[in-house]
Amino acid sequence: MTRFALTLEYDGAPFAGLQRQANAPSVQEAVEDAVFAVTGQHATLHAAGRTDAGVHALAMRAHVDVETAIAPFRMMEALNAHLRPRPVAVTACAAVGDQWHARFSCTGRAYEYRILNRRAPPTLDAGRVWGIGRPLDADAMDRAAQALVGKHDFTTFRSVQCQAASPVKTLDRITVHRAGERVLVETAARSFLHHQVRSMVGCLALVGMGRWEESRVADALAARDRQQLGLNAPPHGLYFVHAAYPPEDRF
Amino acid sequence: MTRFALTLEYDGAPFAGLQRQANAPSVQEAVEDAVFAVTGQHATLHAAGRTDAGVHALAMRAHVDVETAIAPFRMMEALNAHLRPRPVAVTACAAVGDQWHARFSCTGRAYEYRILNRRAPPTLDAGRVWGIGRPLDADAMDRAAQALVGKHDFTTFRSVQCQAASPVKTLDRITVHRAGERVLVETAARSFLHHQVRSMVGCLALVGMGRWEESRVADALAARDRQQLGLNAPPHGLYFVHAAYPPEDRF
Repeated sequence: MTRFALTLEYDGAPFAGLQRQANAPSVQEAVEDAVFAVTGQHATLHAAGRTDAGVHALAMRAHVDVETAIAPFRMMEALNAHLRPRPVAVTACAAVGDQWHARFSCTGRAYEYRILNRRAPPTLDAGRVWGIGRPLDADAMDRAAQALVGKHDFTTFRSVQCQAASPVKTLDRITVHRAGERVLVETAARSFLHHQVRSMVGCLALVGMGRWEESRVADALAARDRQQLGLNAPPHGLYFVHAAYPPEDRF
Repeated sequence: MTRFALTLEYDGAPFAGLQRQANAPSVQEAVEDAVFAVTGQHATLHAAGRTDAGVHALAMRAHVDVETAIAPFRMMEALNAHLRPRPVAVTACAAVGDQWHARFSCTGRAYEYRILNRRAPPTLDAGRVWGIGRPLDADAMDRAAQALVGKHDFTTFRSVQCQAASPVKTLDRITVHRAGERVLVETAARSFLHHQVRSMVGCLALVGMGRWEESRVADALAARDRQQLGLNAPPHGLYFVHAAYPPEDRF
């Protein structure tokens, strides 16, 4: 048995999410179908994180176990040949020991949220950014965001469908900065609740527009009440950008 | 009569080009239809350059003449409302004097060509970059490209459909550099022949792959023979990025 660690890049638009669904296309189904086409084996894709419908990934980490003599580079090439023309690609592939698990060995996840802040709607970036016409104060968003850093009960920023056992998470980092017409939110944690990033970004956008006082983000967090959520940002601005592993599990 | 100078951004994918066509959607048709919807007038869109089917623009400059009391900002907002959901947007709009002509006042055009140089095919960038799997030597491409700078007969790099009176053009600048997985070609001239940028990029890609000696670009240019063209790069990696106007025509 060979465990192949895969790095996946995908456009979330045509998918109902990363995870396999009964009646809708998923990234998992696309990759598992490609693995079957290449190896003749039904393998399960294990991924570092679960992304929702419409959410993108620049470098999702995942693994599959298959009985094969194919070298990792040929495996990557063959998977990409079968994945075309769907917008999912394997950008790196390595054979790893079976102590390495894409999900359970992962010690940190990082996301980026991209806002296009201008009057004109997105064209080349349509479906890949959240277009906000009203001018955003990125500095105010960044200041307000710092109240979210640390260990908190994130019930306010958690989807009602969230299946996590506890709403308590530790947010390691969240920053907001402007790059020309773009406002970028970057955040990292060991793990996130369902919709947590989109919920945080939605409230920060209200701060950026001046509709919320900066301090209201801290108040919403302290309330531990989903009704205090101002706005859930749309999925198509969200990118899974990095999964971290401990040094002994790097390859 | 008010002359509105427009800055246009568009995704070239769904269009048969900038210029109006009898039986296919064009950027010109989309914008002229929007102008008619807003003002009730049939105006002709004059643009700084003509882009082919599939070619994108980050900042095409154009103008329309209409009898209207609408202020430029409202004009931009109204045009964008009518352009949706097509991937064309007016990113800037100003009222200018009728001595300013988007095409005839324009003294320089700049294009960027984007190559994604990695084994995996493009996903999020599909239709927006030329994916080349074989490693490119961007430094060799840059060196070879310098033979094209200056006043030359560009017959080798000219489409057989090109309607320009002369094949002689002066290329002001062409540079190639790598930015991570991307190889970017930037070029500027007063004007270009039909397919000139794509033809130059195609030959430079052959140099980058090691299939052409660096000196062969200069040889192909000197031959003034379309049969010497190595490769025409695909349209979807090409972006019109800038139109220059003399200081007295800026606004």
